[in-house]
Amino acid sequence: MAYTPALSRLIQLFAKMPGIGEKTAARLAFFVLKTEGSYAHDLSRAIADVKDSTRFCSVCYGLTEDDPCPICDDSERDQTLLCVVEEPSDVIAIERTHGYRGRYHVLHGAIAPLDGRGPEQLKITELIKRLEPGGIREIVVATNPTVEGEATSVYLARLIKPLGVEVTRIAHGIPVGGNLEYADQVTIGRAIEGRRSM
Amino acid sequence: MAYTPALSRLIQLFAKMPGIGEKTAARLAFFVLKTEGSYAHDLSRAIADVKDSTRFCSVCYGLTEDDPCPICDDSERDQTLLCVVEEPSDVIAIERTHGYRGRYHVLHGAIAPLDGRGPEQLKITELIKRLEPGGIREIVVATNPTVEGEATSVYLARLIKPLGVEVTRIAHGIPVGGNLEYADQVTIGRAIEGRRSM
Repeated sequence: MAYTPALSRLIQLFAKMPGIGEKTAARLAFFVLKTEGSYAHDLSRAIADVKDSTRFCSVCYGLTEDDPCPICDDSERDQTLLCVVEEPSDVIAIERTHGYRGRYHVLHGAIAPLDGRGPEQLKITELIKRLEPGGIREIVVATNPTVEGEATSVYLARLIKPLGVEVTRIAHGIPVGGNLEYADQVTIGRAIEGRRSM
Repeated sequence: MAYTPALSRLIQLFAKMPGIGEKTAARLAFFVLKTEGSYAHDLSRAIADVKDSTRFCSVCYGLTEDDPCPICDDSERDQTLLCVVEEPSDVIAIERTHGYRGRYHVLHGAIAPLDGRGPEQLKITELIKRLEPGGIREIVVATNPTVEGEATSVYLARLIKPLGVEVTRIAHGIPVGGNLEYADQVTIGRAIEGRRSM
């Protein structure tokens, strides 16, 4: 005997999740099985629900239950400022700072030729369409500081600048609370390059 | 905006799992949401199924879909040998070795007075009942080498020996492939105590 068929199946599915190996998957499956009350039922329902109720906003392509999403629908937000990010989760990370009051555009990835992902796989055409009516003054490119994210930011700058819209890039540097000693060379280089007068 | 309500709910439920913090829970929830095809549906179904289809064997209290379980039902197994473990997952760990051909009894825990878990919360009465008809020659106590597991093994030995059944304990020592230098003192002490002639 090994696991029961139902348990094996659940372990296999958990093991497909990022960062979950087979041992952890087994521990999670046993947890689901052993937890008293309605936990397993609630979890099963929540997984089905999240897929059914969540869609992408037809304006910004962020996650939402209503279309357009509450951010696109918020007339108090700065309509002239658009922040471009790779993933819906990036919108949430930026919103948590409470430091940005413009709107967003989610690309759903970054340009990665080695993975066969070119500009046409991203929501770039949709971004350009949003710029056409005019009214957007600045695009803040907040793609990740990875090779793919940088390539995407350069591509976007070349595409958008000729349209007369300002394109800015978020600052890279030493993280707050971080330590120069432990920062990598590229980050330190970027921090010096991006220095500001005090 | 933060997460959508459905996404928040799923993150909360994932975060209840052992070893899953809020950031990991969010990553898993996004994975469920973003994975194409039937993954979310399959996972939702598998979680419901595991709870519905898995029960405890009425003989050994291990996990099973049929009652009695395939191990208890296997007449080729040594009926005179019973291995006592804490959890259903321990049965699977021992079965994987292919080195044990007796049957099992799952206690569903260990004696832990600090957590309010005494012998009456474990399947000990059920174990004694299995010994009553006679025919069982040896009990192999395979509870964990923790304070609780050791206490449980001592308790079981005192209870069962007077019934005329041999009680043995699995060996503790240096793990195969392990290194004396890195083993803790208690383990090394046990390894020396349990030495065997070559």
